[in-house]
Amino acid sequence: MTTARTWRGRVFIGASVDGKIARDDGTLDWLTDLPARGHNLNAAIEHPALIWNTFIEKIDAIVMGRATYETVTGFDEWPFEGMQVVVLTTRGQVDDPRVQVAGSVEDARRLLDALGVHDVYIDGGRTIQAFLRADMVDELTISVAPVVLGAGRSLFGGVERELQLVVRGSHATDDGLVRTTYEVVR
Amino acid sequence: MTTARTWRGRVFIGASVDGKIARDDGTLDWLTDLPARGHNLNAAIEHPALIWNTFIEKIDAIVMGRATYETVTGFDEWPFEGMQVVVLTTRGQVDDPRVQVAGSVEDARRLLDALGVHDVYIDGGRTIQAFLRADMVDELTISVAPVVLGAGRSLFGGVERELQLVVRGSHATDDGLVRTTYEVVR
Repeated sequence: MTTARTWRGRVFIGASVDGKIARDDGTLDWLTDLPARGHNLNAAIEHPALIWNTFIEKIDAIVMGRATYETVTGFDEWPFEGMQVVVLTTRGQVDDPRVQVAGSVEDARRLLDALGVHDVYIDGGRTIQAFLRADMVDELTISVAPVVLGAGRSLFGGVERELQLVVRGSHATDDGLVRTTYEVVR
Repeated sequence: MTTARTWRGRVFIGASVDGKIARDDGTLDWLTDLPARGHNLNAAIEHPALIWNTFIEKIDAIVMGRATYETVTGFDEWPFEGMQVVVLTTRGQVDDPRVQVAGSVEDARRLLDALGVHDVYIDGGRTIQAFLRADMVDELTISVAPVVLGAGRSLFGGVERELQLVVRGSHATDDGLVRTTYEVVR
């Protein structure tokens, strides 16, 4: 068993955005019957995904969990100048005039409605999952790094609902990120 | 809460190929310090991923689990004419002269070595995971469908090891698949 293999093991498989290869009952309809809903897909796939600059330029509010907020307060500079900042936490008030607190995603929704914002950056794993469950995510840009970690915190871990997406742009970068911008279809 | 939202919830996040957004301890080194190992990445990212025809043309052997084998025997035509076929199963022999049986990935390796094959198609979720764990996967082409399923069988579920990859090609298709071919770096 110490000799080098003389063959290459090669995988060719379909998966969902959350890394599933079949439904629990083994069915593959979601992969074999792609709806291609005509949401300008043919045009979109020749477009790149959003990058940070094209993403952030329209953002006027950000929602984050308490852990993310506490990390950011350790930075020298407050990175959200000019944005409405909502901290989603069940651990009570935050003594910081730069932010507002929401105790639930429903609270966050009411707050964002009242603030009259248009483009809300949903930041952090648990916040993203809560907003996905509440059907309050409209766009996802995912930059996939060229690594299989095998362990860690899952992006879609607690979502447990099905979401139909369309590709609005996709590209690979020099350093091996595969970046895709999806819109959620309703 | 019945009024329409006037804002868009937007996500911008990095993830690994297996859908992780952080290590268990929260660290992001794998995303922020991309090695860009110079494996012809700059050239490769202007290339498309493999498609079925360009993948299968060099394949001379296929390894599959018993469930996949039993599905295929129900087809009118045997789709693996001219290929060596290995069924990975702990449930004993298979009475079919077209296939050979391996009781473990180590058995499969010895058998494939002895057969003198060069390009082995690793098929089926559990078989892929077993080969990943045994470090016998050299290339992965993953076609990501534009859907979040929320439940189902995971591609990388039982792998629990880290694998460094490089992008050899990536493209989006008309119907919203984002297809990427990775090579495993050793």
